[in-house]
This record gives sequence, C-alpha cells and structure tokens, in this order.
Amino acid sequence: MLEKIRVVLVNTSHPGNIGGAARAMKNMGLKSLVLVDPEKYPHPDANSRAAGADDVLDNARVVSTLEEALGGCSVVLGTSARDRRIPWPLVDPREAADLCLQTWQADHDAEIALVFGREYAGLTNAELQRCQYHIHIPSDPEFSSLNLATAVQVLAYEVRMTWLKETQQPTHMPEVEATGMLGAAPATHDSLELFYEHLQETLVEIDFLDPEKPRHLMARLRRIYGRSQLKKSEVNILRGILTETQKAARGEVIQRRGEHV
Amino acid sequence: MLEKIRVVLVNTSHPGNIGGAARAMKNMGLKSLVLVDPEKYPHPDANSRAAGADDVLDNARVVSTLEEALGGCSVVLGTSARDRRIPWPLVDPREAADLCLQTWQADHDAEIALVFGREYAGLTNAELQRCQYHIHIPSDPEFSSLNLATAVQVLAYEVRMTWLKETQQPTHMPEVEATGMLGAAPATHDSLELFYEHLQETLVEIDFLDPEKPRHLMARLRRIYGRSQLKKSEVNILRGILTETQKAARGEVIQRRGEHV
Repeated sequence: MLEKIRVVLVNTSHPGNIGGAARAMKNMGLKSLVLVDPEKYPHPDANSRAAGADDVLDNARVVSTLEEALGGCSVVLGTSARDRRIPWPLVDPREAADLCLQTWQADHDAEIALVFGREYAGLTNAELQRCQYHIHIPSDPEFSSLNLATAVQVLAYEVRMTWLKETQQPTHMPEVEATGMLGAAPATHDSLELFYEHLQETLVEIDFLDPEKPRHLMARLRRIYGRSQLKKSEVNILRGILTETQKAARGEVIQRRGEHV
Repeated sequence: MLEKIRVVLVNTSHPGNIGGAARAMKNMGLKSLVLVDPEKYPHPDANSRAAGADDVLDNARVVSTLEEALGGCSVVLGTSARDRRIPWPLVDPREAADLCLQTWQADHDAEIALVFGREYAGLTNAELQRCQYHIHIPSDPEFSSLNLATAVQVLAYEVRMTWLKETQQPTHMPEVEATGMLGAAPATHDSLELFYEHLQETLVEIDFLDPEKPRHLMARLRRIYGRSQLKKSEVNILRGILTETQKAARGEVIQRRGEHV
C-alpha cells in the first residue's frame, strides 16, 4: 500500500520544507514525491533538511500543474487548515489513513495522492475541489497552522501505523523486545515463592513485619512484585539484597567493619 | 490533561529544532517546555522556527540536568530510537498517549514528562533508565531517525487525539461542518422523486433508456444519487442540467444556434 501513496506538495516556498517532507516520508516508508511548481528547487536547503533522504528528492517529479501531479490517481485527499464555506467530506488523519487502506483493499493498483498546500495560504478552493476528501489535522484552533514538513510527518505516520496494524506488524521495535527476552526468562513460580519466603524472613529480622500482626503486608508486597512480572535474573538480584540485609541485621557487616577500625 | 504534560528536550544542538518543537507543541495545545543544557539558547533560529509560538519559548525553563527537568513528575516517558539490550517497557506513540490519559485519570494533579534526546545520539542509557517507559515511533528500520521537531509533533498529535476523543470533542473542525449545513438543507423525498421522474424522462428522450428494456438502470442511478445524500440546492442544479439536456435533445438549442448563423 505504501508504494501507492504519492505526496504532492503544491507551490512550496521554502526548499527546506521539501527536504523535511522527504525525510518524514522516508522515515515512514513513503517514496513517491511530486512537486507542483516549487518556488526554489533543486536547492541545497532541501538536501540539507532531507538528512539522508536524498533518494526521495532525486526521484521526485517536478510538474507545473496540480492536474499533472494527480494523473492516474483514484483517490485524492487534500489537507485543509482554513474554515471553508463549501461543505466537503472532512476526515482527520487517522480516518484519512483508513481511506488509503480501504482504497488499497478494493484495488491494489489504485494510486492515492495526499496533497499539501502552500506554507502560508494552503490550497486554493479550486485545488481543494479537485480532492474527494479534505483532511484536517485537529490542531488548537487558536494556533492551527502546522509546519509543512511536520504536517507531512503526521499523515505519513498515520498511514504507516494503519499499514503496520493491517499487516499485523508490531508498532514497537520487535528486535529489541526479542533481544531483551534473551537471557531474561521469567521467574518460575517456585523461585518466586522462595523469594517471598526470604523476603518475609528478612522483614521479620529487621523488625518491619510483626508475625503477630502481619496486617496483610506480604499480600501487598506480592501484588507489587506480581505486577512487575519478575525475570529469573531479577529475582536473583532481589534475593542478593535480602541476603545482605540479613547480614546487616545480624550485625555481621558491623562486626566486619569493627575489625577494620 | 494537556497542561500536565511537559516536553523535555535534552542537550539539543540546533536552536531551530527547539523553535520547531515549540510550534508543534502549541499547535497541539501543549505549553510546558523544559530545555536541559541546550547548546545554543536563546537564539534567533529558535524564534524564527517557532513561527508565533514565542510564548512557549518565553515560558520555557532552562535547567542543567535531566533530574531537575523531571522534578515533580509521576510518569516519565522517553523516546528511544536505538536498538537496546536492556529490556524495558516499550510503547508506540498511541500507547504513550494512552498512558498519559490513564495517569491523568488516576490523579488529575500528576505531572507527566515526554523526554526527547539529542539530534544525533538520542538519550543515553543512563537517561533512558530514568524513564518508566520508552516510546518508539515505528519508523522504517532502514531510515529510522526522525527530525526532533517532527518527533515532538507526532507525540503531541497523539496526545491531543487521545484527549479530544476522551473529552468527546470532534477531531474535525466542527464549525466548518456546521457552516456547511446552513443553507444546505437535505432534499425532500418528494423533490427527489420528481428529480428521478425528470431523469427517467430525459434518459428516454436522449435514447439512453429504452422503456421496453429498462435493465434496472433507474435502480442503479437511484443507488448512486442515494449514496450522495443530495441537498435541495443540488437537486435544483441537477434538474437544471436535465432541462437543458431535454432542450438540446428537442433541437431547441440547435435551432437557436441556427438562427444566429
């Protein structure tokens, strides 16, 4: 689906924003960029802000009209910031991403365009009328105008989130979680019970727990540790702490210190 | 909830990114910015990229350590781009926004921090260990490093979306939809039936519809127009087109043209 989505930037003033948009696209796996009548392009500011997404810039198509940019598209969604008088199907970025998915599901070859207007003036009414849907990023009405590259980022992010969920790919980094679990086997029930016994014994020794009036203390502690789903290695650490606590309580550390004085 | 969320930028190199982050925050209704040991700040590039979010910059706190920045926070979420060996609770931006909401629901006074690292190196392991949760923006693993301000934008956007949904505020512009409906009353059933009669009559006249073999054509057309939920004014436009079509079919236009030749 991602390769069917083209990002169309109309009459962009600042080449830095073109580079920022290219970077945001590549971050989210989008590749197809079309520039309609950019004010300054190519320009070193675009490459500098692209920060490595030069391939997206190199493959960008530069055209002179929106009509050319939209050639072959089945669905066109245009971002709209301003209050408009003409009623039009209006979606938020998540709904826009969902429309992209629905389009792709209905026809894997359908081309989709996400259209972004000028930095200060957005899209004209004539341009907006070429879009089947208007996308509004739900910004604070008191300060609603997003930077162009960050607006591209929000849409590209929603498209990617929708795609990852649709294809049941994790939205976290899978490698990290997998790596994290290596050598981090969960503690067994038996070893947890030995830990709780050890904990209770220690709490009695340090006079924190009165066996005559236990006041549900152990249950509370079990709840705390239960929630944290301890790993084997973590139980070993906690039991090490308990052992040292017991030594201290029994005066062993203090005695040893005494020997060194 | 939004006023309880502070954005913490650690050791930022480019003041332009601080301004871009301030703008993204203000766009989404966040106000509290904390800068930990920024390389260059204050700086005109910050104000220029803030594009009107100068109040966020003016109220930003500059501190020298992450510890100071996190004072009073109940929940700390840190963005993490790099593959890490230490397993840690890892969430995507939507889950992070949900954690913010849960925290606020449990205690309306709880302070929450979203922490963003250096442009090139992110947060150090020591800094990440001060965070209860790590946030990963699910970027393309081949090109995963987002611009700092756009990363702030994605998180601020998710927080705002979660907040709007929780408080049952629309994620589209409500004014536009309301304005759009004024003077755009839906067509009545009667006027729709008159339109369909007119349409059928016209289609017969132009020899598109054979009354002997209608082939469900009118049913198909009813489905098309039914889906578009026509307004009164739109029915008038369509009937105007039909009237002109009938005139053309009857040769009236051609006759009139003939008179002018």
